[in-house]
Amino acid sequence: MRRINVGLIGFGNIGCGVIRILQQRKSLLAQKIGIEIAIKRICDKDLLSKRDVLVDKNCLTRNADEVINDPQIDIIVELIGGINPAKEFILGALKKGKHVVTANKALLAEHGSELFTVASDRGKNIYFEASVGAGIPIIKSIKEGLVANRFSSIFGIVNGTSNYVLTQMSREGCSLSCAIKEAKARGFAEKDPTLDIEGIDSAHKLVLLTYLAFGKIVNLKDIFIEGISQVSSSDIAYAKELGYEIKLLAIVKKESDELEVRVHPTFLPCEHLLSSVEGVFNAIYVSSDLAGDLMFYGPGAGQLSAASAVVSDIVDLTQDIKAGLFRPTLNSIEDASIKGLRKINEFESKYYIRIMAVDKPGVLAKISGILAKFGISIASVTQKERLKSQVVPVVMVTHEAKEKNLHGALKMIDKINEIKEKSVAIRIEGV
Amino acid sequence: MRRINVGLIGFGNIGCGVIRILQQRKSLLAQKIGIEIAIKRICDKDLLSKRDVLVDKNCLTRNADEVINDPQIDIIVELIGGINPAKEFILGALKKGKHVVTANKALLAEHGSELFTVASDRGKNIYFEASVGAGIPIIKSIKEGLVANRFSSIFGIVNGTSNYVLTQMSREGCSLSCAIKEAKARGFAEKDPTLDIEGIDSAHKLVLLTYLAFGKIVNLKDIFIEGISQVSSSDIAYAKELGYEIKLLAIVKKESDELEVRVHPTFLPCEHLLSSVEGVFNAIYVSSDLAGDLMFYGPGAGQLSAASAVVSDIVDLTQDIKAGLFRPTLNSIEDASIKGLRKINEFESKYYIRIMAVDKPGVLAKISGILAKFGISIASVTQKERLKSQVVPVVMVTHEAKEKNLHGALKMIDKINEIKEKSVAIRIEGV
Repeated sequence: MRRINVGLIGFGNIGCGVIRILQQRKSLLAQKIGIEIAIKRICDKDLLSKRDVLVDKNCLTRNADEVINDPQIDIIVELIGGINPAKEFILGALKKGKHVVTANKALLAEHGSELFTVASDRGKNIYFEASVGAGIPIIKSIKEGLVANRFSSIFGIVNGTSNYVLTQMSREGCSLSCAIKEAKARGFAEKDPTLDIEGIDSAHKLVLLTYLAFGKIVNLKDIFIEGISQVSSSDIAYAKELGYEIKLLAIVKKESDELEVRVHPTFLPCEHLLSSVEGVFNAIYVSSDLAGDLMFYGPGAGQLSAASAVVSDIVDLTQDIKAGLFRPTLNSIEDASIKGLRKINEFESKYYIRIMAVDKPGVLAKISGILAKFGISIASVTQKERLKSQVVPVVMVTHEAKEKNLHGALKMIDKINEIKEKSVAIRIEGV
Repeated sequence: MRRINVGLIGFGNIGCGVIRILQQRKSLLAQKIGIEIAIKRICDKDLLSKRDVLVDKNCLTRNADEVINDPQIDIIVELIGGINPAKEFILGALKKGKHVVTANKALLAEHGSELFTVASDRGKNIYFEASVGAGIPIIKSIKEGLVANRFSSIFGIVNGTSNYVLTQMSREGCSLSCAIKEAKARGFAEKDPTLDIEGIDSAHKLVLLTYLAFGKIVNLKDIFIEGISQVSSSDIAYAKELGYEIKLLAIVKKESDELEVRVHPTFLPCEHLLSSVEGVFNAIYVSSDLAGDLMFYGPGAGQLSAASAVVSDIVDLTQDIKAGLFRPTLNSIEDASIKGLRKINEFESKYYIRIMAVDKPGVLAKISGILAKFGISIASVTQKERLKSQVVPVVMVTHEAKEKNLHGALKMIDKINEIKEKSVAIRIEGV
């Protein structure tokens, strides 16, 4: 049986999972694909820590070049994360004629253009199934399963930490900080959860989904990113009363000849299947022109879940290698009807607005007047409490309005004497 | 650019969709895969009906042999449905050295063993993505995306017609017959919807899912099949009160060293994501050991949705052909830990039971006594109305019980003088 050698760079949590799967499923995979997959070299800067898998010590090295330059290795799996030296390793591997598997969404989001171009020039493939939704085969599905489709939008809950936090706030009525604390205690949030909570991790994944669906690598700085740190438990409670859940969504949407690419907390109607995605689960809701609206759901993180995706990429590459196939273009035919990215000011949406106003006659008239001036029409308005001369929340739902108009209006509203806090606005989708 | 010729047998609704996609996405697909896909011959017994696509008249034939025997054709797409002559056409194509794409779940469910063996012997592939969940890439996901996984269960809502009917009954409180009537009026049910309503279509798909996940082709006659024709609107209403939705599920489940394979109406807790799958949508909930619990959701039928799946199979085959790849084994490595199928009598489940009893003292004691005798313990019991000396529904939820015990008990209960209708039992899953 033909043997294909893999070099692993990054002997951490997911790396150990990959090794374990390749060990335990060696014969299953060999039966399925007629190829023996062998981990020939493993590189990590730390070789001393205890791992939960047994490996041949002769495989181990601290020097990535020994893996990259090994002529018997056909596939390099990069699992160290971060930008440098991961980028150098991947470029080195491609230049040495090796295919690459990576779970490094940050790297691909920031340097995907360069990396995919080098891969294409060298006739090699970069596979990255584990980088979005861990073990959910979302990348394969968009790339291959939906190969003939055009896409109109993708809505993704692609960050398990923030979804866990929002779910806790919604279920328990607790505050953001309390929910984050619990997420940390349960191992669902890192010590510093900023990348997750502020939507950066979601934006990285959104770059990849956008690339797959629309063939465009969007610059991170061109994505509108708003995390969940401003979401309060009262907004979640009002959302529920109105029939919504708040989710941190990564959204790419084709609007006529422009693409909207954004990450932000979103009101989703309770009837929308995405609103039922709870805890650390991820789900990607894909609207395609032939196959219709599809959703892919599963755990968004986890050692074996991510390793499952890495192994499926390795298996696909063994088939490509056996066949001499080279198919980076499967990723990325640009949708030529897209002229550019829509500016945030031009986004149109319905909005939930919460205004903290002193409860006295005439205030609502002032607010409504300003909204009207900016062409924003109101679908519903509720004053949540009655506390004469005290500050109470006024909750509004608008009809479709442009972002710039909404922000203009809120800026002016916040200057009214009776408004005592910065007003909150959250976009409504899926209605 | 290399050109690969496709022969289409079945110029009906989905066939037209396939042709239309291959025409409209010709250049997109060519850019992605570097191959031109051409429909060289189209066969149908009816060549006179008007179709919504334009094709070269010289391609058309009434004689399938002209397609199967054409040496320039590499891929045969079978879309006529039914067992004969579809089976002969596929066998003929394989024997002529052609790969096959089909959406024919009934044929594969009944003769898959033979067809896959012939394909394997000839070194050819049979792809069948459209046969389960139309455009949802569920088969590719199980086969390739989850290639290293072992599975513990699959729960599928795989029949859009019956899910539409149950959704209508649940939403509108209407009767089964009224919901079926509406499904017909809206084009969601065939004139004779028996195959859908009685669970046969779901069972066909379940054979394929079982094959993919456990490598076993189960005989249709060994599957326990119960349709939704016995589900009443009152059962749906009681389900809701108890926090459940009733769904027709196709279930395959590994229980120690046996496989349970069954189709029946099922109580699913409202928190279970599958319970939110409404209308004609399909969803397949897959429990895997590495990637965890995943769900794949989308429209379960439709011309372009099914055609999208057929085209993705054709694209995959062009890559296999280009590469000389042959991978029927990717489908089907048998899980050697499975010793056989569990007999229906040995199934264990929680149950919802509705007993129509005359409202008078002592009846409940008789019922409870019989259940106790059969070792069935009761989790909850509610008498839904109070109408002295008249027949009222008694609704019970049991703890785990064996099917044979439950049926033994119900048989005896139905003999009690005060029981006036055959008692109803529905299995509860996902708790």
